[in-house]
Amino acid sequence: SNNFFLLAGPCAIEGEEMALRIAEKIISVTDKLEIPLIFKGSFKKANRSRVDSFSGIGDEKALKILQKVSKTFGVPTVTDIHESGDAYLAAQFVDVLQIPAFLVRQTDLVVAAAKTGKVVNLKKGQFMSAESMKHAVNKVIDSGNEKVMITDRGTMFGYQDMIVDFRGIPTMKQFGTTILDVTHSLQQPNQTSGVTGGRPDMIETIARAGIATGVDGLFLETHFDPANAKSDGANMLHLDHLEKLLTNLVAIRKTINTL
Amino acid sequence: SNNFFLLAGPCAIEGEEMALRIAEKIISVTDKLEIPLIFKGSFKKANRSRVDSFSGIGDEKALKILQKVSKTFGVPTVTDIHESGDAYLAAQFVDVLQIPAFLVRQTDLVVAAAKTGKVVNLKKGQFMSAESMKHAVNKVIDSGNEKVMITDRGTMFGYQDMIVDFRGIPTMKQFGTTILDVTHSLQQPNQTSGVTGGRPDMIETIARAGIATGVDGLFLETHFDPANAKSDGANMLHLDHLEKLLTNLVAIRKTINTL
Amino acid sequence: SNNFFLLAGPCAIEGEEMALRIAEKIISVTDKLEIPLIFKGSFKKANRSRVDSFSGIGDEKALKILQKVSKTFGVPTVTDIHESGDAYLAAQFVDVLQIPAFLVRQTDLVVAAAKTGKVVNLKKGQFMSAESMKHAVNKVIDSGNEKVMITDRGTMFGYQDMIVDFRGIPTMKQFGTTILDVTHSLQQPNQTSGVTGGRPDMIETIARAGIATGVDGLFLETHFDPANAKSDGANMLHLDHLEKLLTNLVAIRKTINTL
Amino acid sequence: SNNFFLLAGPCAIEGEEMALRIAEKIISVTDKLEIPLIFKGSFKKANRSRVDSFSGIGDEKALKILQKVSKTFGVPTVTDIHESGDAYLAAQFVDVLQIPAFLVRQTDLVVAAAKTGKVVNLKKGQFMSAESMKHAVNKVIDSGNEKVMITDRGTMFGYQDMIVDFRGIPTMKQFGTTILDVTHSLQQPNQTSGVTGGRPDMIETIARAGIATGVDGLFLETHFDPANAKSDGANMLHLDHLEKLLTNLVAIRKTINTL
Repeated sequence: SNNFFLLAGPCAIEGEEMALRIAEKIISVTDKLEIPLIFKGSFKKANRSRVDSFSGIGDEKALKILQKVSKTFGVPTVTDIHESGDAYLAAQFVDVLQIPAFLVRQTDLVVAAAKTGKVVNLKKGQFMSAESMKHAVNKVIDSGNEKVMITDRGTMFGYQDMIVDFRGIPTMKQFGTTILDVTHSLQQPNQTSGVTGGRPDMIETIARAGIATGVDGLFLETHFDPANAKSDGANMLHLDHLEKLLTNLVAIRKTINTL
Repeated sequence: SNNFFLLAGPCAIEGEEMALRIAEKIISVTDKLEIPLIFKGSFKKANRSRVDSFSGIGDEKALKILQKVSKTFGVPTVTDIHESGDAYLAAQFVDVLQIPAFLVRQTDLVVAAAKTGKVVNLKKGQFMSAESMKHAVNKVIDSGNEKVMITDRGTMFGYQDMIVDFRGIPTMKQFGTTILDVTHSLQQPNQTSGVTGGRPDMIETIARAGIATGVDGLFLETHFDPANAKSDGANMLHLDHLEKLLTNLVAIRKTINTL
Repeated sequence: SNNFFLLAGPCAIEGEEMALRIAEKIISVTDKLEIPLIFKGSFKKANRSRVDSFSGIGDEKALKILQKVSKTFGVPTVTDIHESGDAYLAAQFVDVLQIPAFLVRQTDLVVAAAKTGKVVNLKKGQFMSAESMKHAVNKVIDSGNEKVMITDRGTMFGYQDMIVDFRGIPTMKQFGTTILDVTHSLQQPNQTSGVTGGRPDMIETIARAGIATGVDGLFLETHFDPANAKSDGANMLHLDHLEKLLTNLVAIRKTINTL
Repeated sequence: SNNFFLLAGPCAIEGEEMALRIAEKIISVTDKLEIPLIFKGSFKKANRSRVDSFSGIGDEKALKILQKVSKTFGVPTVTDIHESGDAYLAAQFVDVLQIPAFLVRQTDLVVAAAKTGKVVNLKKGQFMSAESMKHAVNKVIDSGNEKVMITDRGTMFGYQDMIVDFRGIPTMKQFGTTILDVTHSLQQPNQTSGVTGGRPDMIETIARAGIATGVDGLFLETHFDPANAKSDGANMLHLDHLEKLLTNLVAIRKTINTL
């Protein structure tokens, strides 16, 4: 259908019930709008600002929930890995291994992900230019894996803010399939509290710009109760707003496809 | 028609012939696409990096050419002013007075422009947030002039680059009519040569994002021979590319209007 | 004595009494420490965020107060100008004409200042690299005036913060006498209130780094009651802290002179 | 002696001979100047831009060379670790475990380092504020290890440059012993070539500012032949320049100690 695809789900897998509930709701929307979906959930949160932040429910337990979502609804899944040893483990349960933005320069991790043969989704570091993602992509390809995607999640702007540089979209499309992570791009890091803030009111603005500038896919975190989610509550889209958002984006995409 | 409007023309008025030639070409496109046009040209270049850069052909001479364009083609015109004294002079020849980005914090200049009763177009400083433009807008309104527009022309990112922060578009629309300057937003300042660089290959990318995020108007500089223009050659759009660009943008705008 | 020199005084000339009182106190300190002083005061505040901010007591009135300070204490004075027409006026009353950071790219203003034959102090734009100040310096020299100084006042970092890039000090010293403005470098612009914030607790930190990296002079704003000053209260140093600060800086300078 | 201390050595351990040769030379200088030394060398380079960059000579082989340096010269040593599993291994050979800047948000890694009981040196992320390092420090302390140090290595400024924000020095000293990494702070990342650039001509400028603003220690990479070093050649200080640099810094430190 030449539509964009979507990586979506909650920030962290908090339990089976919430994962299935969120997946079911997302799929009801993406099926209707003919948007290919990859269900997203972190099995572990390894880079929180504070040691007392929620870090997960147990690695295998969470990965099995991702697998159950996949089998229940027939959708592929994606999760992020943080050390080389995670690659082999996670690859047994999910379809796409994601390298977090802070870790995209870690050669061992990128190579370990590549060697599983799974699709590798490289988040652009907040400290990296679009052009420099070519080197990260090449680490995957040089490891014998051509299935590589790049996801922009904004660029550091001052200590406590991020900007999406849309010049990066056509630049990164030269290197591989390019995704825009609309919820993390709106984070506001380094807040005094040690809890990252966000601008969820700007999700549709950033997503529209992404579609208009030609992204292949969108990434977003969504939850039925963001305020009580165990992580990234400040950024996630409320599930109830997903259909209207995606409906608008599909309309723009259809026009872009004709240009 | 609920279309976006356009401020377009060459960077500087280099002479009557070139101004009329550029205006005629732009109007042939904007008429066809039903885009309201305000013809743009600087009567003086006052903030060049180097003292030996081209600074203009004479103030009144250039302003009279703008007036001639207006009368010949029946379009309103805009020019930028740099000192309070320019406001009264320029107001006799043009319809919109533009405050350059570097000068948008100069109260005397903004108030002088406001007091002419002309439309005032405030460029967002490269060093200002979208939110802080509210104060600049209020300086115009507090001077008794409600006809105020805001133009984003990018935000400083490192010494030699700029990024457009599209979160600023909905923010500034709360304060007034909001325009995106697509050619200056792609400048690359502080180059070693003392001549500002640019990324004209990214004009359509940035313009599409602007339309998708809801700008009321676009601003762009265009010339039939950018490489030989007397200023800003590194950024201007070649006139021959204008129709295709605007055609694509109108298509996106029509979709946006339906959302 | 090979000491650093100092440009200091209140942000704005609020009246004769306060100017004389501040000057007397500064001079008692700089005389003791053998620091050459140029007394600083703005005769007009032309670039405030909001139109209701204090803008001055009257141009000539303020300039005459600066002249009186000069005659009373035998010190040279500096003030900032905002439009070309100010240059001739201010040059009749002060010894150094200062070009504000936002205006340092305005050729007409820089040339007008240069042509008075007075010393010209160019503030580095918050949006400019140290290297690019060479072009501003050349505008003064090309106007026949070799008496030019450069003052760093920090570089924009995100919307609401500034950083001093100390690599710029040796760079700018290649172009002329180089000063560090320690109070404005600690501004925090674009605050929601429309009033610029600051970090006066960091004045000594930044000043020490400036002396250690070889600045020729320091610039600072000081007041006997910063909280009630009519402008820049968030940044100014309390006069009572001046002697201790300068004593420490002179000690560092003496060591630097031996290296 | 209340002097600053020094972490210094080559970027990577390329072999035993070079490590001993560099250590001997550094120690001859630091002994003379009474600067406590911790010898630095990476046993593995895990975050290179390109997969074909040099990544090391073998983990244990390199760690044993560090141990040999320690025994030969009676100096403590520091190396950086990249995955939790490295912590236990490296702790058997060195005295200080360093967390790289890109990895300082990785809780598992920081906790693993802390649990070895060794001193943990946390590099400030290029994307982190000084204030936010408090949370990283707390991860070490909350793991039962009070021996924690913080090292500033500059802050991202645009895509291809870094600035040291010296306001961060007194801020981080509130959380723990604070070090300035003068060579990495001068890196210029994201260069088109995929090889990080640098400004070694600015090493003394940045180091002087660090000492003047009160750092407890300095970190620098040095080599007898930077141009032919296997990594970071663009940033390292030539060994022959070490004595003059440190002599100047000790002089400044002595003055600072008296203030």
